[in-house]
Amino acid sequence: MASFIPIKTVEELAGYIPQTGPLQMRNQSFSDIEDDVLYHIALGKKSHDLKDMFHDVKFVCFGGSPNRMRSFAEYMVKALNYKMPAGQDLCDIAHGSDRYVLYKVGPVLSVSHGMGMPSLSIIIHEIFKLLHHAECSDVTFFRLGTSGGLGLKPGTVIITEEAVDGLLRPYMEVATLGMMLQHPSRLSHEVAQELLNLADPNADFDTIIGKTMCTLDFYEGQARLDGFFCDYSKEDKMAFLRRVHNRGIKNIEMESLCFAAYCYRAGIKSAVVCVTLLDRMEGDQINVAHEVIEEWQQRPQRLVAAYIRKHLGIESNVSCNSI
Amino acid sequence: MASFIPIKTVEELAGYIPQTGPLQMRNQSFSDIEDDVLYHIALGKKSHDLKDMFHDVKFVCFGGSPNRMRSFAEYMVKALNYKMPAGQDLCDIAHGSDRYVLYKVGPVLSVSHGMGMPSLSIIIHEIFKLLHHAECSDVTFFRLGTSGGLGLKPGTVIITEEAVDGLLRPYMEVATLGMMLQHPSRLSHEVAQELLNLADPNADFDTIIGKTMCTLDFYEGQARLDGFFCDYSKEDKMAFLRRVHNRGIKNIEMESLCFAAYCYRAGIKSAVVCVTLLDRMEGDQINVAHEVIEEWQQRPQRLVAAYIRKHLGIESNVSCNSI
Repeated sequence: MASFIPIKTVEELAGYIPQTGPLQMRNQSFSDIEDDVLYHIALGKKSHDLKDMFHDVKFVCFGGSPNRMRSFAEYMVKALNYKMPAGQDLCDIAHGSDRYVLYKVGPVLSVSHGMGMPSLSIIIHEIFKLLHHAECSDVTFFRLGTSGGLGLKPGTVIITEEAVDGLLRPYMEVATLGMMLQHPSRLSHEVAQELLNLADPNADFDTIIGKTMCTLDFYEGQARLDGFFCDYSKEDKMAFLRRVHNRGIKNIEMESLCFAAYCYRAGIKSAVVCVTLLDRMEGDQINVAHEVIEEWQQRPQRLVAAYIRKHLGIESNVSCNSI
Repeated sequence: MASFIPIKTVEELAGYIPQTGPLQMRNQSFSDIEDDVLYHIALGKKSHDLKDMFHDVKFVCFGGSPNRMRSFAEYMVKALNYKMPAGQDLCDIAHGSDRYVLYKVGPVLSVSHGMGMPSLSIIIHEIFKLLHHAECSDVTFFRLGTSGGLGLKPGTVIITEEAVDGLLRPYMEVATLGMMLQHPSRLSHEVAQELLNLADPNADFDTIIGKTMCTLDFYEGQARLDGFFCDYSKEDKMAFLRRVHNRGIKNIEMESLCFAAYCYRAGIKSAVVCVTLLDRMEGDQINVAHEVIEEWQQRPQRLVAAYIRKHLGIESNVSCNSI
């Protein structure tokens, strides 16, 4: 009798398998380790009952700024009609460290990731491990960010279709034990499309799907003319931005590539939703009034909140936009 | 008469010239811009009198954690015998943004840079521009950090001789307008040697000079076995760490390469001083008691404070170690 050889999909061969049950680590060397100190959020397997604290988590929302992620948590209290017991308030669960903030509102985590891919990579690693220890399943990840737009009215919301690096490569490179490994960045097209469908058609701003360029540098990496260093001309800048715009890039930021690559590799559905603070075709400086930026930053938050409400089956006469 | 062609040094040809007078920007495209909003520290050329606020700055000290850089500022008040007027206290000058903190004690700035090179690159760009607008001259930059050591007792202080990336390359790459540019990372050997000479010979820990590996990733990038992702064995990890250790790497962190590359390119003297929180030959987890880490983190601070006191001609019967 001939032996049966199961045929593997490309994704299985590459080790990228969407996870369905409790989140498993992609680590062959971890079982030996008894405790697990999540150093940068001051939590640990032995010091905390992570399953009791986090087992019900279904949505993890990341953003750069600690204040913004506290505001998002406060917003989610209202959006989910979450009942806070008398005399209690939200608190930063990671208060033992000043590196990141971590809030929890029912099944939603709101986490800051700082700026840039390395800062994001540390916290996303530790949140993955936290969800593994808590035996969470079927979790969706979101990044809610700010960005520079290309040829778009400032305040536009972009749902990332694909994240690429500064050379338009759709993968993140990590120097690993002397080799430069490439991790493909793939986001969930289903979640992106569902978010787009939830965008308020009566809003006075656009919500679109497009490609996002993710850079390691805010000034030269994004072709700005106003950095301390700059050895190219305005014409060079404009030629570069036009070229990437022609290839579908709608906005530029500094975290989407790592976020997409690590979520994909972990087998976790994910989406990136960013508002644009300026049109890079028109300038480099962010000089919009603070209150305007505050309002714009709520746009990705409202969209993701609408997604979460829908998936939790929360009906309300009150639209998320008016909360 | 033959025309005279001045011979340029390699450094001049490459554009790397130590700056002596007021700090000049390395930017050919900047003069057009009237205002300059330093967005991530909520300061600006028009909104603030930057020269009045910062003209006397001579030393800029960076570190990852906001709390640590506040502690360093408080420590400098004592170390410089700085008289704080009655009813006044240190405040975060960048309080209009929650991205970084910025304290000033006389000629010393204490600044947080978050985690990773991209986060550092944003703040160092904006601090360079701030010093330019304030017409500061002869400024020295320090990074005071934490790191993983190689074959060293935890708590050891390393003064970085050379910063290299995860493939041992002594430069930082920045994708710039579609090209991958390489910026050499060179630190001041004079400042490093002077710091070493100031190390307390009676201390119960070692202070040494050595090479520092700077990575974009905390887990796989540093050959940890305890990340969410890991597809190598303990033997692979140990073989890699032994190989880099044999080539002079004493510690591993996530910012020195960008710090060294940008300071060198700006023509600014700089040094990196990090304490080790663990010996990576022995393990991956940082599980030292909080109070112990607090004490260790003060070691780079005390050393840099001794340097600053010496250069300001501050004599004291009280040793910095006992403040």
